[in-house]
Amino acid sequence: MNIGFIGLGNMGGPMALNLLKAGHQLTVFDLVPASVQVLIDAGAHAVHSPAAVARSDAQLIITMLPAARHVKAVYLAEDGLLAHVTRGVRLIDSSTIDPMTAREVAAKAAEQGNPMIDAPVSGGTAGAAAGTLTFMVGGSEADFAHAQPLLAAMGKNIVHCGASGNGQVAKVANNMLLGISMIGVAEAMNLGVALGMDAKVLAGVINSSSGRCWSSDTYNPFPGVLENVPAARGYSGGFGANLMLKDLGLATEAAKQVQQPVMLGALAQQLYQTFSAEGNGDLDFSAIIQLYSGKV
Amino acid sequence: MNIGFIGLGNMGGPMALNLLKAGHQLTVFDLVPASVQVLIDAGAHAVHSPAAVARSDAQLIITMLPAARHVKAVYLAEDGLLAHVTRGVRLIDSSTIDPMTAREVAAKAAEQGNPMIDAPVSGGTAGAAAGTLTFMVGGSEADFAHAQPLLAAMGKNIVHCGASGNGQVAKVANNMLLGISMIGVAEAMNLGVALGMDAKVLAGVINSSSGRCWSSDTYNPFPGVLENVPAARGYSGGFGANLMLKDLGLATEAAKQVQQPVMLGALAQQLYQTFSAEGNGDLDFSAIIQLYSGKV
Amino acid sequence: MNIGFIGLGNMGGPMALNLLKAGHQLTVFDLVPASVQVLIDAGAHAVHSPAAVARSDAQLIITMLPAARHVKAVYLAEDGLLAHVTRGVRLIDSSTIDPMTAREVAAKAAEQGNPMIDAPVSGGTAGAAAGTLTFMVGGSEADFAHAQPLLAAMGKNIVHCGASGNGQVAKVANNMLLGISMIGVAEAMNLGVALGMDAKVLAGVINSSSGRCWSSDTYNPFPGVLENVPAARGYSGGFGANLMLKDLGLATEAAKQVQQPVMLGALAQQLYQTFSAEGNGDLDFSAIIQLYSGKV
Amino acid sequence: MNIGFIGLGNMGGPMALNLLKAGHQLTVFDLVPASVQVLIDAGAHAVHSPAAVARSDAQLIITMLPAARHVKAVYLAEDGLLAHVTRGVRLIDSSTIDPMTAREVAAKAAEQGNPMIDAPVSGGTAGAAAGTLTFMVGGSEADFAHAQPLLAAMGKNIVHCGASGNGQVAKVANNMLLGISMIGVAEAMNLGVALGMDAKVLAGVINSSSGRCWSSDTYNPFPGVLENVPAARGYSGGFGANLMLKDLGLATEAAKQVQQPVMLGALAQQLYQTFSAEGNGDLDFSAIIQLYSGKV
Repeated sequence: MNIGFIGLGNMGGPMALNLLKAGHQLTVFDLVPASVQVLIDAGAHAVHSPAAVARSDAQLIITMLPAARHVKAVYLAEDGLLAHVTRGVRLIDSSTIDPMTAREVAAKAAEQGNPMIDAPVSGGTAGAAAGTLTFMVGGSEADFAHAQPLLAAMGKNIVHCGASGNGQVAKVANNMLLGISMIGVAEAMNLGVALGMDAKVLAGVINSSSGRCWSSDTYNPFPGVLENVPAARGYSGGFGANLMLKDLGLATEAAKQVQQPVMLGALAQQLYQTFSAEGNGDLDFSAIIQLYSGKV
Repeated sequence: MNIGFIGLGNMGGPMALNLLKAGHQLTVFDLVPASVQVLIDAGAHAVHSPAAVARSDAQLIITMLPAARHVKAVYLAEDGLLAHVTRGVRLIDSSTIDPMTAREVAAKAAEQGNPMIDAPVSGGTAGAAAGTLTFMVGGSEADFAHAQPLLAAMGKNIVHCGASGNGQVAKVANNMLLGISMIGVAEAMNLGVALGMDAKVLAGVINSSSGRCWSSDTYNPFPGVLENVPAARGYSGGFGANLMLKDLGLATEAAKQVQQPVMLGALAQQLYQTFSAEGNGDLDFSAIIQLYSGKV
Repeated sequence: MNIGFIGLGNMGGPMALNLLKAGHQLTVFDLVPASVQVLIDAGAHAVHSPAAVARSDAQLIITMLPAARHVKAVYLAEDGLLAHVTRGVRLIDSSTIDPMTAREVAAKAAEQGNPMIDAPVSGGTAGAAAGTLTFMVGGSEADFAHAQPLLAAMGKNIVHCGASGNGQVAKVANNMLLGISMIGVAEAMNLGVALGMDAKVLAGVINSSSGRCWSSDTYNPFPGVLENVPAARGYSGGFGANLMLKDLGLATEAAKQVQQPVMLGALAQQLYQTFSAEGNGDLDFSAIIQLYSGKV
Repeated sequence: MNIGFIGLGNMGGPMALNLLKAGHQLTVFDLVPASVQVLIDAGAHAVHSPAAVARSDAQLIITMLPAARHVKAVYLAEDGLLAHVTRGVRLIDSSTIDPMTAREVAAKAAEQGNPMIDAPVSGGTAGAAAGTLTFMVGGSEADFAHAQPLLAAMGKNIVHCGASGNGQVAKVANNMLLGISMIGVAEAMNLGVALGMDAKVLAGVINSSSGRCWSSDTYNPFPGVLENVPAARGYSGGFGANLMLKDLGLATEAAKQVQQPVMLGALAQQLYQTFSAEGNGDLDFSAIIQLYSGKV
């Protein structure tokens, strides 16, 4: 299939490469020449604006952008995607943004005859490279069914979350809970160790009991508990603290808009804000445990 | 074996019954006559004080008491267990109390030649009745090995957590994380639903993603997501909010003693304190979700 | 002077009336006919759009709008103020909005030759009616000096807070602290009373000690401590909880943009969000004490 | 008058000296010889135990001890004050402890005919030396009236807070509010400055507006705003962060006992716990602002 792809950064780049590997033709755009060159070298055709992607013969366009303001600019600007795209071309936004903006853009696209879904991902840059991302998809049943085979070239878990915007809702809710759990595990592990317990034994008890969670059994932040996690390699790699901070910001902002209290979510955001303000935003998000160990 | 058992309440009662079923002889004591009668009817021998239990021919004495002050009174009072127990008799305290008190009492027992372990449980009254409790044990390797077969008559998961007091440490750390996770799930579920998502679909996404935790996949607080959980029956039964509040109080108190910050833990305690102060302490602890739904 | 005034709600209406009383001519606009009629009856000239205000002979235009999006629309829309206003006409925005938007709009106004200051107020509807508002002004020394006599017709405390946007900064910082203090007083008063102390005696001790603050000595939320405060009349009147919630939202959002942690500020926002979600947004903001008294 | 004085530390020492200056005879005890020597040099008579103070001819005994466990030991131990004191001798405890312990000890003293009041102080070591302390007194009207002239030799503000224990209640409530306010001011000042405002101007606005509080107008934590405060001298001197942490611990513990939520109070405690765990406990409590400035 002829596919347009806008946004070739740490996530978008490897995702686009997986589409090429799956045999698709790609028309790509990014502001960073080096990012574009990687795709050209792999066989993609590069153009110089979102509008040019829209005017190409792409039957489907995917965007992967940093924040809502970029999504608005790329889709809604005077010379943006919606102004130039052919009626009937399908649109997929894989950016992580607030549900309201996602719904607003998708509604405008639908109005002019371009079916659009939101499909944010989890799985990090490693998952993007390996093609093992999880896609959380918001849109109609039919649009989801249509997109599924294509998304399967970039991920292994393609989940339909309901109507437009719900992909973003699922991501924001999951990641808020993830941030809370990670800090909870950090507090519980540090407390137990400060009270005299061995970290591995404590993790073992928790993982077979009611405190069990992904942050404890799969991604434990306490050094020495698990191998092959960021805590085992100085908190490098993984899912950056700044990305968690961004997602917690989306969660508390969305909560404000629907006037839904999120006490622990808001405190988790503040703790990541503190951690990032101290210069640790590029560490893996499990490094938040350092806030609790007097090492920072 | 001849066993002494002090504390025959909601937890201790069924635990003692399971020991009788396993063929042991029991000498029991409790302040509440009705609780004692149940055990007499089942074949136990009742006496009228902890001291009388200590002076019986019990080779091992188990205590299951509400709080640290009761443990101190039963063991350390002038006419308490330690003053009357025969040297060499083993002691097991299954109460949930702070690690410091557990260590203090065990040290005094050991000094006079009575090996003592702390062995708090999880699993609730249902687990106590079914004999499926988890025991978190603090004490020497030898004392753990000796107690294990006996504890296996009352539980199915007997975990050695390290030296004296570490059973309490494990429980307090696990339950603090549990309280945080439960509130985190409550916030995430309510946020997702307020933003337009179906609760079951959202739980499905979380449970197969990085937000996965026991409070979400096994004990989800949102009505209609799981069957056979308190949320499916008006939050009756289960693990009471007041018990969670007690455990969060133990966690923050222990954290204060070792000067270890527990930000989310302290906020979780306050939220359960609010919930209990509003008269909801007897509901299952997953009912905390009602703090977030404007129904309270 | 000929003055334009846009936004004649609970605050803007009485402010505009005070300008009329001071002898100025007013050209006014609001979307709500009834609000406009009050001003017409008092001698103002009404027009039908912001653009019409801009095209009138007003030498200075004041806006008093609910939120940043209204400010952006009124000033920056295609047919908005900036598109139609005569070069040299001075602009004053008294809306409470985020500092970034205030600076962005003022910069655009300045670029085209219209000096603009931000001048949010405190003092509530009573202060607006009585002409006793406090104005917190951001803008150049010269622009402040020019505006001061005019603002003095509507307020008694005109404070220069520094360059453009700093009026908003001052307001957001002050009101975040106010929200925190009010909840702090609510917690301290309820705690003291629950521990057996008389509320008036406790307030007396606090007010002559280091806990002294405006929320305690001037606006105490505990019923029976002060007369002539909302707590003495069922929390009616005053500064609404929803307005405090809005200001705390501005504070946490601004903090996010400059990555400055505000832990208590964020928790205060969540507590007001809880209180509003329970249907209490129209009560005075000191009613937050009800969150702590088991009455809600 | 012949007065007994137990506890001659940073606070008790200078308080006892002021009693000598006022012409009283003192019989003193402390565990630290150097602290005792200062009083001997000033004319006091030293003895070697609390019991010896009790058996002296003191008509009134004052205690100033670090924590509740010391108060319990000094008053209630087998060879403690109550066991040896003559019926009718008056007792004043100026230690800062939880209200429950204060009431328990006072009740036991009253039972055996020794009128006892709780009279914790504020004002710090400087106030103790200058004789300008504030005494918050819990006890009967008659006992307060009797003690007042004597307390006036050590302080200038003697406040009757109601029945036994209420001195402690007043102190704990006031200091919890103080801790919250101080962190609130730290957040508001740092936020305003990060958003571009001058610290002195911001403090000026706050101090004449609704954010006004003792922590802002008398003890501002932002360097350069006020002279003669700890912030102007590297946060040395003043009221130590560890003392604030202790008082917040008393407040949250008392709140737990009466099941009264104190959300901001609990978070304030955690923030001071974090700050102390990082090694800053000896700095003045206004240094908590450093938690927010990325300097720690």
